[in-house]
Amino acid sequence: MARKKKWIYAFEEGRAEMRMLLGNKGANLAEMTNLDLPVPPGFTITTEACREYYRNGQRLPEGLEDQIKKYLSQLEKKTGKGFGDPVNPLLVSVRSGAPASMPGMMDTILNLGLNDQTVQGLISQTGDERFAWDSYRRFIQMFGNVVLDVSRDKFEHILDQLKERRAHLLGKPLDQVRDTDLTVDDLKEAVQRFKELIASEKGQPFPDDPYQQLMMAVEAVFHSWNNPRAISYRRINNIPHDLGTGVNVQAMVFGNRGWDSGTGVGFTRDPASGKPGLYADYLPNAQGEDVVAGVRTPMDIAWLAENMPAVHQELLRHAEKLERHYLDMQDIEFTVEKGRLYVLQTRTGKRTGPAAIRIAVDMVHEGLITTDQALKMVDARLLEQLLHPQFEPGALAGAEKLATGIAASPGAASGRVTFTAEEAVQWAKQGERVILVRRMTSPDDIDGMHAAKGILTSEGGRTSHAAVVARAMGKTCVVGCRALAINYAEKFFSVNGTIVREGDYISIDGTNGVVYKGDIPVVPSEIVRVVLGDLKPEESPLYRYYEEFMTWVDQRRKLGTQANADKPEEARLARLLGAEGIGLARTEHMFFDPERLPHFQRLILADHKEEREEAMKVILPFQRQDFYGLLKEMDGLPVIIRLLDPPLHEFLPHTEQEAKELAEKLGLPFEDIWTKSLRLHENNPMLGHRGCRLGVTFPEIYQMQTRAIMEAACQLKKEGFNPKPKIEIPLVGHHNELIVTRKYVEEEVKRVIQEQGVTVEYQVGTMIEIPRACLTADKIAQYADFFSFGTNDLTQTTFGFSRDDVEGKFMADYLEEVVGMEGTPILRANPFEVLDPDGVGELMRICVEKGRSVKPDLEIGICGEHGGEPNSVWFCHDIGLNYVSCSAFRVPVARLAAAQAVIREEERAKAKARVGRRKKQVTEVRD
Amino acid sequence: MARKKKWIYAFEEGRAEMRMLLGNKGANLAEMTNLDLPVPPGFTITTEACREYYRNGQRLPEGLEDQIKKYLSQLEKKTGKGFGDPVNPLLVSVRSGAPASMPGMMDTILNLGLNDQTVQGLISQTGDERFAWDSYRRFIQMFGNVVLDVSRDKFEHILDQLKERRAHLLGKPLDQVRDTDLTVDDLKEAVQRFKELIASEKGQPFPDDPYQQLMMAVEAVFHSWNNPRAISYRRINNIPHDLGTGVNVQAMVFGNRGWDSGTGVGFTRDPASGKPGLYADYLPNAQGEDVVAGVRTPMDIAWLAENMPAVHQELLRHAEKLERHYLDMQDIEFTVEKGRLYVLQTRTGKRTGPAAIRIAVDMVHEGLITTDQALKMVDARLLEQLLHPQFEPGALAGAEKLATGIAASPGAASGRVTFTAEEAVQWAKQGERVILVRRMTSPDDIDGMHAAKGILTSEGGRTSHAAVVARAMGKTCVVGCRALAINYAEKFFSVNGTIVREGDYISIDGTNGVVYKGDIPVVPSEIVRVVLGDLKPEESPLYRYYEEFMTWVDQRRKLGTQANADKPEEARLARLLGAEGIGLARTEHMFFDPERLPHFQRLILADHKEEREEAMKVILPFQRQDFYGLLKEMDGLPVIIRLLDPPLHEFLPHTEQEAKELAEKLGLPFEDIWTKSLRLHENNPMLGHRGCRLGVTFPEIYQMQTRAIMEAACQLKKEGFNPKPKIEIPLVGHHNELIVTRKYVEEEVKRVIQEQGVTVEYQVGTMIEIPRACLTADKIAQYADFFSFGTNDLTQTTFGFSRDDVEGKFMADYLEEVVGMEGTPILRANPFEVLDPDGVGELMRICVEKGRSVKPDLEIGICGEHGGEPNSVWFCHDIGLNYVSCSAFRVPVARLAAAQAVIREEERAKAKARVGRRKKQVTEVRD
Repeated sequence: MARKKKWIYAFEEGRAEMRMLLGNKGANLAEMTNLDLPVPPGFTITTEACREYYRNGQRLPEGLEDQIKKYLSQLEKKTGKGFGDPVNPLLVSVRSGAPASMPGMMDTILNLGLNDQTVQGLISQTGDERFAWDSYRRFIQMFGNVVLDVSRDKFEHILDQLKERRAHLLGKPLDQVRDTDLTVDDLKEAVQRFKELIASEKGQPFPDDPYQQLMMAVEAVFHSWNNPRAISYRRINNIPHDLGTGVNVQAMVFGNRGWDSGTGVGFTRDPASGKPGLYADYLPNAQGEDVVAGVRTPMDIAWLAENMPAVHQELLRHAEKLERHYLDMQDIEFTVEKGRLYVLQTRTGKRTGPAAIRIAVDMVHEGLITTDQALKMVDARLLEQLLHPQFEPGALAGAEKLATGIAASPGAASGRVTFTAEEAVQWAKQGERVILVRRMTSPDDIDGMHAAKGILTSEGGRTSHAAVVARAMGKTCVVGCRALAINYAEKFFSVNGTIVREGDYISIDGTNGVVYKGDIPVVPSEIVRVVLGDLKPEESPLYRYYEEFMTWVDQRRKLGTQANADKPEEARLARLLGAEGIGLARTEHMFFDPERLPHFQRLILADHKEEREEAMKVILPFQRQDFYGLLKEMDGLPVIIRLLDPPLHEFLPHTEQEAKELAEKLGLPFEDIWTKSLRLHENNPMLGHRGCRLGVTFPEIYQMQTRAIMEAACQLKKEGFNPKPKIEIPLVGHHNELIVTRKYVEEEVKRVIQEQGVTVEYQVGTMIEIPRACLTADKIAQYADFFSFGTNDLTQTTFGFSRDDVEGKFMADYLEEVVGMEGTPILRANPFEVLDPDGVGELMRICVEKGRSVKPDLEIGICGEHGGEPNSVWFCHDIGLNYVSCSAFRVPVARLAAAQAVIREEERAKAKARVGRRKKQVTEVRD
Repeated sequence: MARKKKWIYAFEEGRAEMRMLLGNKGANLAEMTNLDLPVPPGFTITTEACREYYRNGQRLPEGLEDQIKKYLSQLEKKTGKGFGDPVNPLLVSVRSGAPASMPGMMDTILNLGLNDQTVQGLISQTGDERFAWDSYRRFIQMFGNVVLDVSRDKFEHILDQLKERRAHLLGKPLDQVRDTDLTVDDLKEAVQRFKELIASEKGQPFPDDPYQQLMMAVEAVFHSWNNPRAISYRRINNIPHDLGTGVNVQAMVFGNRGWDSGTGVGFTRDPASGKPGLYADYLPNAQGEDVVAGVRTPMDIAWLAENMPAVHQELLRHAEKLERHYLDMQDIEFTVEKGRLYVLQTRTGKRTGPAAIRIAVDMVHEGLITTDQALKMVDARLLEQLLHPQFEPGALAGAEKLATGIAASPGAASGRVTFTAEEAVQWAKQGERVILVRRMTSPDDIDGMHAAKGILTSEGGRTSHAAVVARAMGKTCVVGCRALAINYAEKFFSVNGTIVREGDYISIDGTNGVVYKGDIPVVPSEIVRVVLGDLKPEESPLYRYYEEFMTWVDQRRKLGTQANADKPEEARLARLLGAEGIGLARTEHMFFDPERLPHFQRLILADHKEEREEAMKVILPFQRQDFYGLLKEMDGLPVIIRLLDPPLHEFLPHTEQEAKELAEKLGLPFEDIWTKSLRLHENNPMLGHRGCRLGVTFPEIYQMQTRAIMEAACQLKKEGFNPKPKIEIPLVGHHNELIVTRKYVEEEVKRVIQEQGVTVEYQVGTMIEIPRACLTADKIAQYADFFSFGTNDLTQTTFGFSRDDVEGKFMADYLEEVVGMEGTPILRANPFEVLDPDGVGELMRICVEKGRSVKPDLEIGICGEHGGEPNSVWFCHDIGLNYVSCSAFRVPVARLAAAQAVIREEERAKAKARVGRRKKQVTEVRD
């Protein structure tokens, strides 16, 4: 059966749509061939062959070799050359190409087919002995490294020795000797010595037979699909591990056959700014690898325009043709051989956030694409880039990299190192820019985090406290930078031999996790400056593109977009970035303020309701002020305020020393405080006495918070504002919990409204963050005015994963572990980053269905970290949520993803209708 | 609308089937009335009126008062007396009566209708002035206490003063003066002083109006539904809190009208042993409350037979009639007034385990009931009583009670107090009986727990470590006995002023949680002695009843019953008690053995795979030996062995001191050990690096365990046994976890089978204990040979409740908290004891459906604590599980519950068919 399978397609047999089977590169080569672009002929071995290779215990599928021979002989006919022919030899390139873009991650071999005989043919064919021997040594070097796994350094070492000899003979210093200074004899010797190296390293000679070379190269490409680099790349970019790669075998053309030859790579528009016009590098008399490897510095494409204007014109025509054909900016590779242009590759080009927006908007204006196509074209994640501060362009050149951690909250920040939250606050008050460096952060550090420009931790993952809070604040943050050894006592950290002391400058990049030494200048986001009124819109072309693009976005999306924000200034920015409400205001952060904490601690430690009420009288005005600010900032828009959620012991001392200090501060006996703190200790606080369980056991806390919310709302109402408070009960798992706490809340609301003599509309709803809540949503919905998915907790309980624990322990293994023979890791993505559709998502579907079965208009949103992640936003749209809520800087991401979800849905519907119509036509014909 | 509601039924209007509306007592009074038993006439106010009372903010429902008046006037006609009539007054009793039996938990008022006028009528009616005034003072006393909430002691104090005066006058010592010595004048004075007491306590006079008395009494009964005693009783007995109580108003009859009057309570068979024949107490010249209150010591029913043979004969006839009518042993109350017998109440009698079995079997033999009815009649929970040791009958008389904790594992135990596991082991070796007393236990205490006769802790709840492990061992255990202040350093505990030192004797009752001082003799279970061969079956009549009964059980049940057992001796007992396999053998307990622990610690602390493998070589033979014993004991039956599950840090030191000791023991640097222990620390270990996550990251541990299992199995096979090992992967949440770990396991199995040269059949399956596993069961089932629900963990994650934390913190509030106006607690039962059908059960249903959708014959069982709880077993039957697994002593419980599940299912089907038939008939008629 496998014998009859078609494992190979010639370029002219393929199409762009076949990218799952042929890989992106193969499909594009086929498409370009059929567009009549000058593509060297060749064929593609399918991704299916790669998958079969892994299924088969890493053996090439049956029948593949025969088919390769068949297609090779066709290639010989097309090129008029012979594979292994000593007179007119056919040389080929062998390149990987997966259905998803993985640039540079897998292997490539050029000049395959050369041996001691065919090199002579190449000489007689081209009349260029040096070129032929140089190609031959390059081939052996590449093959030896990629296929036979001989260290690159060992080849370089031999070359260096030859160069040294040449330097000596030429009387030049070594660093002025170039590859091109090597003579034919040098290159011949290199070939000889490379072969000896391989024989001694591998215990077998370098394969002279071109067929054997080809089969080995094909297998090496398949093998490279699961090299560690490739696996990590896929993990970072959420690419499935079971796609497999195609292998493209293509007749070689040579850019290194003199100054009328050359090679180039380029983009059909500027990938950094999006500016129209070909943006390319060209290297005369060179092969493609020289550009990619950066061995020689390429020239601007202007060189080609000046020196070979016809070729340049042809290239521009092809570039335009490709862009018009693919309707997106293209990343192309080309080669000029003896004045003849070949296009070797095209693919959709990577771009920065600003470029993505500009290209999309320009292409609409150019009439090339519709606005829907523009919306689809932009990766929503890129929008976040537009909002965070960045290092000044060019400022990174020469910067000293200290280490790399996990990129937790994007942006760039520089400042002086401090090791405690208190110092961060003090220094910031004195006008210093500060980077807060901690092993981990805890809720006590909130003020320090606020005061700092950026946060750097040595422990924790992307969902640690530091990461989550920093993202919510829109603060640059790098976590889990394990190379840092922090010495709190002596106030320094050491990293790879460098000591950085308190007060020293460092800079951190929250987009890629890199930590630099020194003070690298940072520029704020142009868009944010405009929305905050610090820059006029007409002064920012980027803002104008952004504004037009976001208008299209908002015309298309159906999902509402709200923001998670705890403070008025966060709410203000969120609103300016398009938030239509606050989907989650946490109230616990408000208790960590040093002015308030002792009172809250007194409240927790109280033995009687009366003592608790006394303490709450002090806290009430603070809370009222918090809510007043938030509701005022969001005037006319809904604000969901979540009542107290975390385990109480988080607010209490964790060591005897802390207990002693607190005892002094509060004037209470140490023994009492310490005993209580120990009693409140929990083995699994995440599953303990928290959320509405606190509301059930300490109703007065929820009533105090309710009072603060409603007094603030009434005050605003009297001042002519339109506050829309929505009170949210966290962690409900049983409808009775909601009945009880809702009753406490409503009693207090009634009292306040009566006292204040003014009516404020309000709602009482619940977080859905416990599996049981989803499973019994039909009961809970009867008592809830709204639902809001807390997918962080829901992910924790659905998986049984503690967010705080799994990242440092086994998550990395789970994302990389190779299962069985298919190279799949246990989890395709960290479920705390990308919503798990099969488990957590299934519970959400059940919840929406059950909830709306009793209350068809029930408003349901999401306020977990996933609310700003595009895949998760699409999922939320698909299951019919009303809105998503995320940190302020992700609101534009969510808006775009929401619009994309609508377009995706319509396309699915159209595809379905097409299938339906086709079926109908078939039926009609049959009838 | 409410006005038209029928709130009252006269006894003759009711039926036994109306118990939800009338309460048990009311329904029984109605039934008895219709059976022509001599029941004093009366009427019942419905439970619906009680529910309406609570819904109504504790106000009597509209229309109720009018209906009471109407039914009272009917009662006046029936009795020929007048309510409040000074000449021929009608007196009534007012009693509560809920749809579930709650003996003595709610309120009763007798002699209602008396006042200064009607007392005269009672005198002229009966000619007995003393009786009339005694009734009057009793009534005021009862009404004052129950309705008006005046302390009982204050009334007693007045009576004591009168008795003292009488003693003085009679020249008798006070303790020889009886109530009956009080004269008419004394009683008149009592009435007067009682009224004064009430007026001064309540600020309003005692109500003279009989109607007012009645309305107040009715309300008091409604109110008593939610007194704390009643709420706790319902909680302990899993009775819903929203049933409400009925109120029975009945014409009084008097047992205290002389020696031809009297009162009695009794059972139609002996409730302790089940022996046939009336088993009753009788008190001549007394009212019922005297018997119940134990004020006077009642006589055996023989007194009645001797002195009033006709009445006795009539009583026997009624008892037989009732038993034949209700087809169950009855608990009856009766009164003789002037030689005339009245039956006041009947209800199904409570009984001990042995009595339950004997009554059921006898009644089948007597031809009264079918075997199915016998199976339904026995509360499955009672079977556990038959298996545990008990205090010697009568031995508790005079025992000094120290405190009461939570009954965690039933049975009785006595022995000498030790405070450490090590000492428990040592003392036991020297032949001492030991009770291990700890604040909490941890896995390190396992050996001490094994060595002890019983375990007593001052902290923790029914699902704490001590409780769970003790139940699994079948060891008597009382936990959470907070009155105990344990001083480990000085080796004593103090409790309510008593000091108990190491070595002192105490006795504990694991069935009711009571702790006694001293050495109370304990007798082992007869049944267990028989199955273990220590007693011949013919020497134990109880065993013969048990055996016959269990034969019927096994003929009916479909669910398999297996046991959770870790050690060969546990497995042996389980098998003798009917276990058809081991549903869960935990392997981690095996690592806590002091001989093995250091090696396992070395394994955990190892930095390299090689070191781990070295340590495992030492552990392997121990594990093999464990599994050999288990598989041999269960020869021919399946044994599910769960691979390592708990977080690794459980095995490591928790304090610096412990780390130092371990460092010395292992000869490793202290710093290393302590750092590693800290690094392995988890914030939420329940959601951390445990279960199959260990198997993924440390495959060599799972492979070592697999090797031990399979080497043991192969050995047994060679010796002619038939081992059936089933290897279980815990905590799977994603099918990829199972794919990976299954692969590791199977590779090792293949190696062992090849080495050993003998084939053993085996299976590889998974625990289902994470919500995600249920939601994706269709994927997981493809790689699992069996599923086993771990409902302890599944309950934790579905609710987001940490078993270790919630019990001491908010669970009590959740089980008692009165929600809104309906008196419902948040949770009807602790979900760790009784399976939650709506949340956890819904996930189980989803799992069974999805799992079997891809593998229709997939074997699915349950091995959580719920596997031995009857309601949960019924649920497991209903959703189609193959078996339940529980601790050995609960296996008979599970067997009976499984049989009951079949009968319940058939009855539901019949009821449905009846409805269907009825519908069909209607349809046919219409056609």
